[in-house]
Amino acid sequence: MFGNQIAGTISFEGDRKFSSFDPTNNRPNNIVFHVATGKEIQLALKQADNSFYQFCNSTPKDRSILLNLIAEQFNEGKPEILGAYCKESGLSIARFEVEFKRTLDQLHMFADYLLQSYSELISETHSEQEKSLPHLIKKRMAMGPVLVFGASNFPLAYSTLGGDTVSALAAGCPVIVKAHPFHPETSFIVGKAIISAIKKSTFQPGIFSQLFDDQFEVAQELILDNRIKAVGFTGSYLGGKSLFELANSRPQPIPVFAEMGSSNPVFVFPESLEEKCEEWTTLFSKSITNDAGQFCTKPGLFFVPQTENGKSFVLKLTEKLIKEPSFTMLHPSIHASFEAKKKELIGLSTGELIEKSGKLEGLQGRQGLFITNTPEFLQNKALEKEVFGPFAVIIYYESMLELNACTQELLGQLTATILASEEEVNAHEPFIFLLKQRAGRLIFNGVPTGVRVCQSMHHGGPFPASSDSRFTAVGTDSILRFTRPIVYQGNC
Amino acid sequence: MFGNQIAGTISFEGDRKFSSFDPTNNRPNNIVFHVATGKEIQLALKQADNSFYQFCNSTPKDRSILLNLIAEQFNEGKPEILGAYCKESGLSIARFEVEFKRTLDQLHMFADYLLQSYSELISETHSEQEKSLPHLIKKRMAMGPVLVFGASNFPLAYSTLGGDTVSALAAGCPVIVKAHPFHPETSFIVGKAIISAIKKSTFQPGIFSQLFDDQFEVAQELILDNRIKAVGFTGSYLGGKSLFELANSRPQPIPVFAEMGSSNPVFVFPESLEEKCEEWTTLFSKSITNDAGQFCTKPGLFFVPQTENGKSFVLKLTEKLIKEPSFTMLHPSIHASFEAKKKELIGLSTGELIEKSGKLEGLQGRQGLFITNTPEFLQNKALEKEVFGPFAVIIYYESMLELNACTQELLGQLTATILASEEEVNAHEPFIFLLKQRAGRLIFNGVPTGVRVCQSMHHGGPFPASSDSRFTAVGTDSILRFTRPIVYQGNC
Repeated sequence: MFGNQIAGTISFEGDRKFSSFDPTNNRPNNIVFHVATGKEIQLALKQADNSFYQFCNSTPKDRSILLNLIAEQFNEGKPEILGAYCKESGLSIARFEVEFKRTLDQLHMFADYLLQSYSELISETHSEQEKSLPHLIKKRMAMGPVLVFGASNFPLAYSTLGGDTVSALAAGCPVIVKAHPFHPETSFIVGKAIISAIKKSTFQPGIFSQLFDDQFEVAQELILDNRIKAVGFTGSYLGGKSLFELANSRPQPIPVFAEMGSSNPVFVFPESLEEKCEEWTTLFSKSITNDAGQFCTKPGLFFVPQTENGKSFVLKLTEKLIKEPSFTMLHPSIHASFEAKKKELIGLSTGELIEKSGKLEGLQGRQGLFITNTPEFLQNKALEKEVFGPFAVIIYYESMLELNACTQELLGQLTATILASEEEVNAHEPFIFLLKQRAGRLIFNGVPTGVRVCQSMHHGGPFPASSDSRFTAVGTDSILRFTRPIVYQGNC
Repeated sequence: MFGNQIAGTISFEGDRKFSSFDPTNNRPNNIVFHVATGKEIQLALKQADNSFYQFCNSTPKDRSILLNLIAEQFNEGKPEILGAYCKESGLSIARFEVEFKRTLDQLHMFADYLLQSYSELISETHSEQEKSLPHLIKKRMAMGPVLVFGASNFPLAYSTLGGDTVSALAAGCPVIVKAHPFHPETSFIVGKAIISAIKKSTFQPGIFSQLFDDQFEVAQELILDNRIKAVGFTGSYLGGKSLFELANSRPQPIPVFAEMGSSNPVFVFPESLEEKCEEWTTLFSKSITNDAGQFCTKPGLFFVPQTENGKSFVLKLTEKLIKEPSFTMLHPSIHASFEAKKKELIGLSTGELIEKSGKLEGLQGRQGLFITNTPEFLQNKALEKEVFGPFAVIIYYESMLELNACTQELLGQLTATILASEEEVNAHEPFIFLLKQRAGRLIFNGVPTGVRVCQSMHHGGPFPASSDSRFTAVGTDSILRFTRPIVYQGNC
């Protein structure tokens, strides 16, 4: 039976229902999900709040055991998850394998981190030298119940059991997931694994609930409730911004960690362009098109010198891009939005659109490039906007002056990529500084996609790439989003 | 000559002027300050922005040298600062000495910290084991120009050269100070010391500007400018909240670190009450009245058991409180607001008001207590509100049930103090947990005032005590407010 998963029980009281969609076969799936009712929402909140005392006071070791139990149950559910995943996302089995492994590895990474490296003690200041001064111990404390939003483009790694949920549980925060309506069955099956693991643990079932809704009411009621203390979200700018505003409208505002994507500009410098042309165009044609470019770090904007080598680079990139396979997009609405955004952007500018020709299957995304130049970019800010899908804009530049002018216009980015020789990087320090001010991660001579999940990753950039550039959504440091310092002074 | 201090120059272009006030002699001071004009504001912003490249790329060692130079100049200006300080704040010479030393120590603390402990490197992940994975280096980076608001109650330690300015400079962020209008001359003289020090350093004058205004226009224009990347503020809830909202209304919202005060509840348990009565009442009568209670950590709310020992505690506290000297308040408006808030709060509740009797001099604050009980507190939320001045509310409670009910109602606090035996603390873990969820610092058997400036301090609590409970306004960790992580991936 499917339904809202509330502290270990399954509940489907509501009258409003929805189904997910099978993008590969272009038809709705036939499993029905009941939208959570106000009563169900309140129950999930109450259970999360009640379970916080025990969970917050647990040791990192206890939580490490829990994460390993979840990993075990998740792994056992693999065949069942695979079926739902492909049916609901249109993503391939190969992609499933990569994402499943990533999700599993992420669980183990946090379990190991809690056991070996994470410390709740931040620092201690004794008063030996000055007896009159008090003794202080500063520790990290879990913030309280966290609301996590499943993401459309990562049904596993950024959804029910994605980085937000795992880092919140690792911190000692109960989690309420609002499942993404594009993959409710996948979310439900993953939710079952979490619930089974909690049953095997010493923790109360209230530390995990998952609610379903294909509209915004459930999310709104949750985010405005005083028991929710932080929010994790990966998705669109409009979605993230509205959550940010709702959270700040509360009598007691709370932190929202919204990763809202970006156009991930790539800056191509002339010196290595001839030598590296083959390597770079191969890497980037795949980086733009793989899984229909549905990644928040997909490179969407290229600044290329208007030289012979620059033109050859663009020509090669185009040729290879067109030859890459076309992938099915996640949902009819994403496919439609992809086509609409391209049209909108191109309608406002002069340039050349090159797209894969011929008939595509169902919801496959038609990869393409739009080639224009600096004056167009400076006149038309829409060219900077993220187009979610297998598409990028090429801006030819004639001088560093032009490149600087374009970069000055850029808003916050998750990543900025520099394709250049060491001499060029050294010669253009002030330009690199412009990028540093605008991005969370600088990539030298590589692709921004394939975000490595590890301690030194930073996934987040100045607004609007993310709502809080000081915290990462990927890697062990993401646990810091869900803790705050507390100091104990004196003796009792 | 007095005026706006913009990147080392002095400017007084505006027509709108104001003077400060001498609270001790209850008359205006006769030095005139020109409110910064739009042109002056723009110039300060431009200079801050232009100086950021060099400042951000400087080493912690370079900035340590700068802070020591500032400390030297600040110390040289001491006699001049003293004159203005007392004339503008009504605070005593004794208090000046304490605050001056604290400000100087804070500078040296950050200078030492930058030299010895602070590292811009957060972590590094190599790719030895998996050659296909990229090498990552995660570093802290200064966020950009920071807007600092001088505080009324700390003309030195939280104003022009207070914790916000020093931690922002330590991080590598240019600073624009909006001086507090209650002590512009003090601010100006301190500003001169900073400017002299920068002239002796290798840094550009644009890293420091200070603008004057007795209204809100200058602050509003600054905070809405895209070049400002973070805000430090200590003051009232209304002031902090409005800055928070302005910053979030920007196309690119920025972090606001507003420390907005709290009522700092004290929870008195029965067991040690008889034995500790003398010691505690002595400590707390001073903690409430010292410098007219004008501290954000002044204990403003006491929960006392309704027993014989509880009543003796309150009686003793009252007796000692009344005998303490009365201090001149910072400004006529603060004095008036103190009296008005007391009246408002008391007008809504049944209870007993005990105040020092007799005639006071000028703007001296009349210390007092308002004694009431749990049912009144639960009915009247206004009793929780901070009254800035030498005043506290006593709530008698009859049971842990009542104490829990009151605590559930409390909003975020900078501090919560527990006066109890070790056995009581251990026996009431769930109650202590309620406090942990609501406070940034728990004090056991001591007073919340006298915030120790060191690495393990945390000064900040859940909203509305501060706007971001994850960061401290005091101690070396306050530097983290003005940095964000950035990752460098791959080789160039």
